[in-house]
Formats: sequence, structure tokens, C-alpha cells
Amino acid sequence: MSNRRPSIGVFDSGFGGLTVLKELVALIPDADYLYFGDTARLPYGSKSTETVAKYAVEATHFLEQQGANLLVVACNTATALALDQIMRGAAVPVVGVVEPGAERAASSSKNRKIVVIGTEATVASHAYMKALQARGVQAREKACPLLVPLVEEGWIEHAVTEQVARIYLDEAFGDGFQSADVLVLGCTHYPLIKPLLQRVAPPHITIVDSAESTAQAVLALLKLNPPPTSFAKERRQLPRVRVFATDSVEKFRRLGARFLGHAIEDVEHVDLKE
Amino acid sequence: MSNRRPSIGVFDSGFGGLTVLKELVALIPDADYLYFGDTARLPYGSKSTETVAKYAVEATHFLEQQGANLLVVACNTATALALDQIMRGAAVPVVGVVEPGAERAASSSKNRKIVVIGTEATVASHAYMKALQARGVQAREKACPLLVPLVEEGWIEHAVTEQVARIYLDEAFGDGFQSADVLVLGCTHYPLIKPLLQRVAPPHITIVDSAESTAQAVLALLKLNPPPTSFAKERRQLPRVRVFATDSVEKFRRLGARFLGHAIEDVEHVDLKE
Repeated sequence: MSNRRPSIGVFDSGFGGLTVLKELVALIPDADYLYFGDTARLPYGSKSTETVAKYAVEATHFLEQQGANLLVVACNTATALALDQIMRGAAVPVVGVVEPGAERAASSSKNRKIVVIGTEATVASHAYMKALQARGVQAREKACPLLVPLVEEGWIEHAVTEQVARIYLDEAFGDGFQSADVLVLGCTHYPLIKPLLQRVAPPHITIVDSAESTAQAVLALLKLNPPPTSFAKERRQLPRVRVFATDSVEKFRRLGARFLGHAIEDVEHVDLKE
Repeated sequence: MSNRRPSIGVFDSGFGGLTVLKELVALIPDADYLYFGDTARLPYGSKSTETVAKYAVEATHFLEQQGANLLVVACNTATALALDQIMRGAAVPVVGVVEPGAERAASSSKNRKIVVIGTEATVASHAYMKALQARGVQAREKACPLLVPLVEEGWIEHAVTEQVARIYLDEAFGDGFQSADVLVLGCTHYPLIKPLLQRVAPPHITIVDSAESTAQAVLALLKLNPPPTSFAKERRQLPRVRVFATDSVEKFRRLGARFLGHAIEDVEHVDLKE
């Protein structure tokens, strides 16, 4: 049975990648999913390339050992800092979130000017800027380190979050980028405050998040490289989801539901050092 | 020479413990200091007891291997969740920040009602509440998870930080705790926003942070248990400080200076897995 459906490993530093898992499950229900959240070592967004790459390679090895035959790096920081190293270390195809997000953003921009918000580490890597410039688009990147803790505090529709977002976006859209027409959410936490960001951003901005475009990239890849027996011929079944976390499983269930949009029944604890 | 001065190991999840190191160096200059910041795995304040205890025991073992003959757990979360485990695993005396802070707070309160602010994990452990109740004081604990990221963003005197602090403190001092007369800063990041907290807290509140009282507890312990040759008889010398960090040493130098109050020349990288 495990050969007949794709087994998709989804990796994130914590909970944010669940926004990508949600889109994947909606678009590709005929699959098994293995989600890994490295909650004992989160956040990645404030850490160095060396540390993030080491953690990401360990996590993706774990997912391969669990039987994943395709890997989704559902974390912008890990994709931006370590996609090459993850790909070199993996025996299965790997999809990151930066290229699908940049592709969608570039195709949505008429003015060829785009603002990208993300973690400190994602912005410092300039992964989005390079991906957008390769598509002939000018990009401004802005680190927004307070948005992740605000989302994790649950202040989704809160005056403080709106004020913080306004400070960050005013700076991002100032000084030559008033005409930018696309805002890329370069962190998987940000889709949770999309309505607030839409209010705070200049009018007529199109907001692009990588979750949906990444799910479509995965679907396209599966069509090109189907698992041993084509899953497309199988009777449609409910997706099966297994969730692994490196810190408290109780906290994962509680916080994770906010990102996934519904309750998470079973979370298994993993210690990568064992 | 190493026998003739105390070698004090100071441990924190990251930068916050530098506020304790600063007080130690001022009070006990005739000592060598080994500071360990577990920056690759910070923050501890949102993580489980099991994870924090595992990390803390590894870190203190490292400091003992480096020659520390006294350990200071300069992290409220690690003290609150794992002091017993650290003590059981250590061959040298261990001082945490909770007991010295609670002692100072209890002796400063006339009304016998105290508010403690800290991380999610510190508050959930009720370590301060137990320490204060043992001294006949009523305590209210309030988790303030956004204050650490606000300090790390450098928003020390910022309208947003003031607004967030007001929300937290209004709740903490409400509902039966209007008469509390002491506010304990139960996280080593908070001393950096002490002037702001003093403005936002009710008037006539005494603010107690654990840094100074912990340094005095260490001095008292050294007098009771002097290192092999009494350091008190030695000619006063400048303190020697070695700093170890598990993530980027460049970032440690940059952010750490904010907590220590002066530049940090040399930071050594450590990988605890090696």
C-alpha cells in the first residue's frame, strides 16, 4: 500500500509549515503525509546558515527514514539558507517554498516591483531577491522579526500587531517602492494575519503566499515523477497525516490547530539525538 | 593560577544571562568567568520541561569540563524548570536566579503581595510562586512572551513595547493585586526595559531583578566555600571572561554588547553534539 500512494514529507522549524500542509492536503488528498516540526530548536529565523542547515538536513533525513518519497521544505528560512544542502543529502525529490512563491509573485506583478517580508535569516540570504531578479523583477526585502511571536501569542487581530505591521510595511513600501504591486509573505506564519496585512498594505496590493503555489509545484512534480504505482488510478481516499515534533506534543496539538485550521489528533515525539 | 581564583561558569539560553554576568563582574572582579549562551537552541521560555532540562544539563556539563568550579544558572527558565536536575548532575556548587530574586523581593514587600513577570515556561512552573509563598508572600505570575522578542528587536524605548507592557501589567496588577508593591523581573531580558516598566507599572512599585541578588548569593557562597587558595588574599586583578556560544559568534558579539553594556571581544563557537 505504501508504494501505491505518494508519501510526502513536509518539514518546518515548528508550526508554520502546517499552512503549507493544509494546501497540500486540499490539492492532493490521495497521499500520505509525514509532517516534522523541529519545535525543540525553533525558531530558525534568527539563527545562522550553518546552524539552520545542520538542523534541516537532520530533519529531512528523518523524514526519508520514515518513508517519504518526496520532500517539501515548508519553511522559508530553511529553504532560503539550506535548500542546496538538503537536496545534496536527499535521495528523493525536494521542493522548497521560495521558487514557487517567487514564480507566482513575478507572474502577478504588472509594475515589476515586489516587496517580500520574512525572517531576519531569510532576508539576509537574499534568496527571494535572487529568485525575483532572475525573473526580471525588482525586489525589496524587509525582515519582520516580531510578526512570528505576535502570531504565536495569538494576537491575530490585535491593535499591537496592526501597529507593528504598519511600521514594517511603511518602511518596506517607502523610498522607491511605493509602486510595488505585490507583497510576498516569505514566512509560513504570515498567512494567519493576511487580512490584517491586506488592510495595512497600500491599496491594490496583491498578497502572495507560498503555500498554495508550493502545493501546485508538488502536484506538477508528482505528475512528472509518479510514485512506483500511479496514485492517480487509485480510488480517492482520505489523506493520512502523521505528525512528529521534537518538543512537547501537547503544545504542538494546541498551537498547531491554529495553523492547520482543525484539530490535530496525534503527534509523536522525536528526539533527533537518539 | 587556575586554582587561585574562582572560575565561575555562567549559563543562559542566549544573551539575557549577560545582565547577570555584568553584576557578577562588578561585585566579584577577582575571578575568571566562563559564559555559555545556547544561542543555537534559544529561546527556552516557550519549550517543555524535558527539553529545557536536557539542554541545561548539557550546557552545565560543558562549563564544568572547561574548569568551572561554581555554576550560575543565569536563566530564569532553566532555573525554574531544571535546577534540581542540574544540581544532581553537577560536581560543583550551583546557584540559580529564582531563590535570590524571591528572597530580595520578599524582603522588599511591605504589603506581602508581589507580581512576577516571566516567560511562558517559567510562569507555568510556578517556581517563583512557590519560593515566595514559602516566605509568606502572596504572588501573581504573568507570562509576557512578547517582551523578549521586543528587546531583541532593540525596541527598548518604543511605543509598541510600552503598549505591550501596559497590556500585560494591567492584567497582572488587576483583580486583587492592585495593592502589590513589588514587581519581580523573572527573565534576564527584562532589566533592559526597566525604565519603561517603571513608567508603566503602578506608582510606588519596587522593581526587583535577580541579577544583583544572584551576584550577592554567589559572593556569599564563595566566602563559605572558597576555592583551593583563597582568592581574597590575591592582588586584585581584572576579571577574565571567556564566552562560548552555540550559534553565530558574530551575532553574539553584536547582540551581546547590548546586554553586557560594553563590547565583547572574543566569542568561541561550540557544538554540543561534537
